[in-house]
Amino acid sequence: MCGGVGSRFWPFSRRELPKQFLDFFGSGTTLLQATFERVRPVVQPENIVIVTNREYYDLVRAQLPEIKEENILLEPARRNTAPCLCWAAHHIAARDPEASMVVLPSDHLVLKESAFHEALRRGFDFVEGGDRLLTLGIRPSSPHTGYGYIQRGEPTGTDSILKVKSFTEKPSEEMAKVFVNSGEFFWNAGIFLWKTSSLLKAFRECAPQVAAAFDDGDYSPKGEREFIDRSFPAAPSISIDYAVMEKAPNVYVETVDLGWSDLGSWKALYEVSPRNADGNVTQNCRLLASDCKGTLFAVKGDKIIVADGLKDYIVADSEKALLIYPIAKEQGLRHIVNEVKDRFGEQFV
Amino acid sequence: MCGGVGSRFWPFSRRELPKQFLDFFGSGTTLLQATFERVRPVVQPENIVIVTNREYYDLVRAQLPEIKEENILLEPARRNTAPCLCWAAHHIAARDPEASMVVLPSDHLVLKESAFHEALRRGFDFVEGGDRLLTLGIRPSSPHTGYGYIQRGEPTGTDSILKVKSFTEKPSEEMAKVFVNSGEFFWNAGIFLWKTSSLLKAFRECAPQVAAAFDDGDYSPKGEREFIDRSFPAAPSISIDYAVMEKAPNVYVETVDLGWSDLGSWKALYEVSPRNADGNVTQNCRLLASDCKGTLFAVKGDKIIVADGLKDYIVADSEKALLIYPIAKEQGLRHIVNEVKDRFGEQFV
Repeated sequence: MCGGVGSRFWPFSRRELPKQFLDFFGSGTTLLQATFERVRPVVQPENIVIVTNREYYDLVRAQLPEIKEENILLEPARRNTAPCLCWAAHHIAARDPEASMVVLPSDHLVLKESAFHEALRRGFDFVEGGDRLLTLGIRPSSPHTGYGYIQRGEPTGTDSILKVKSFTEKPSEEMAKVFVNSGEFFWNAGIFLWKTSSLLKAFRECAPQVAAAFDDGDYSPKGEREFIDRSFPAAPSISIDYAVMEKAPNVYVETVDLGWSDLGSWKALYEVSPRNADGNVTQNCRLLASDCKGTLFAVKGDKIIVADGLKDYIVADSEKALLIYPIAKEQGLRHIVNEVKDRFGEQFV
Repeated sequence: MCGGVGSRFWPFSRRELPKQFLDFFGSGTTLLQATFERVRPVVQPENIVIVTNREYYDLVRAQLPEIKEENILLEPARRNTAPCLCWAAHHIAARDPEASMVVLPSDHLVLKESAFHEALRRGFDFVEGGDRLLTLGIRPSSPHTGYGYIQRGEPTGTDSILKVKSFTEKPSEEMAKVFVNSGEFFWNAGIFLWKTSSLLKAFRECAPQVAAAFDDGDYSPKGEREFIDRSFPAAPSISIDYAVMEKAPNVYVETVDLGWSDLGSWKALYEVSPRNADGNVTQNCRLLASDCKGTLFAVKGDKIIVADGLKDYIVADSEKALLIYPIAKEQGLRHIVNEVKDRFGEQFV
């Protein structure tokens, strides 16, 4: 899944260049490329399908030249994750009705790659053994209030895979602490495994409106583009969690420890990045800092930063905008971006 | 005088692009261009001579296309202001031995233009009436410790022009307060008027080493370039204040109120710039600030800044470097620039 658009990393991510296309760690690899490389030991490149918005076609081609043309599914409209995955399941099932699939957001960080590969292999074994929808649940390292949580239920006989008891939206801090201390709750990473047939069945049962957008018509791999142009925009905009996972009776969680972050914000990026002795983080820049602590410095291009006296800040500098903002206030960044758009124009966001 | 190189406005001013060539106020006019326009009502353009370093030739041509080739004097080496003015006096005297001249740094701000024109006209009258060296003394608006001070002496009979009693280097804050309260001291603006013949005489009497570099040889307007290549580098590197003004017996000060600043630092720029209600200054940028006070925001190019929580800072962003630095510490900027050079290389300074 590579169609997301976000303002949480403004001014780095913009509508024209969302986060998955950025080289956040200055490693020469964008998050999309890293996701591709990460899944490659488990899924053959010719079986990796990218679903993205039509406006990102050139970016995907440029960043993943190895991906064949027919493996890039271009959404004509933004409809959240459920229609995206319903289309992907149809597309894959048309090639192989027995296929199973893993769904990966293209903008996450996974530090423990072999644990990730093991989790996928175990997950495929599990979903191929029956009509099962599996989601990865990340063992929480803190009472994070920015993630949804999954409560585990009955064991399944497969080690570390359990029935899901409940899904919870982002909790309050107090609630998050209870969740984490209980040992029963896991972060919802948005990584899913299932047989395409299981997912299509689940759509028909749990989200008939989504299913109908693809079932009512003449979907075939040959006429796919025309079909999608007509049908996709008619699907409701709804997430896979809400449309299927929270409703289906056959949902399981595989509990894992992957060194995972959804890199959902500057703060999340700060938390997973290596820090210097003063607790500062530099992304792609050279820094001469004095009396600075707990600050993330991120720059585009070959540029140096000289800073003095900043405590717990985000300093993010792109071609079009410079952000100097307290990390603690970053929940307000979304409003800031809207204000920037209103005052200075679309071109800055 | 247009040959200066400075680090006090880093990262805006750099060796390749010193402050006089910058459009500091985003007005579409560089300081050099503003200086040219400012003196034009008093001095015909064909009589305006630019002395600069050879490496800035292209910049001068581009910024002042109206100036004729032969009016640009290109120093082959950096020798401070005394050799620069000795050459200029020879050059002008060769055209007209009776000429008088006004010396203007090309990187200062003057807000009161008609007072400036009046001061120059009165000054020319004064120096053309005898063998006199005249410097402008700015009525101080604060006990500034970044300027040299001139103490006025006996009146001359010409209103507002007095004999100079003494020159003082940059004083301590305590001393500066005494100076300002006495009413006897004026800021040394580095703006001078004299007949070329008076200056050349003064060089021969007060700074024979400087005079000798130009007198010992075959200076003529025709062979000027070859002569200068040979002689100029042989002159000692010394300021006009130290070489002549502090020694000559015939030095006078014209006390003026010009809305003048030497724009000697970010702080000086902040002080002369219009501020918004929070006491913030923006140079060439659009700002969305929250909880910021007393901060100067300066940007190159079409860029916006979003800032929160900065008090009394300089935020200066160029293509190569971003500076976020407390105004109060700006005396340390010179060291910072040296450290940048040592750690990151020449290309950043």
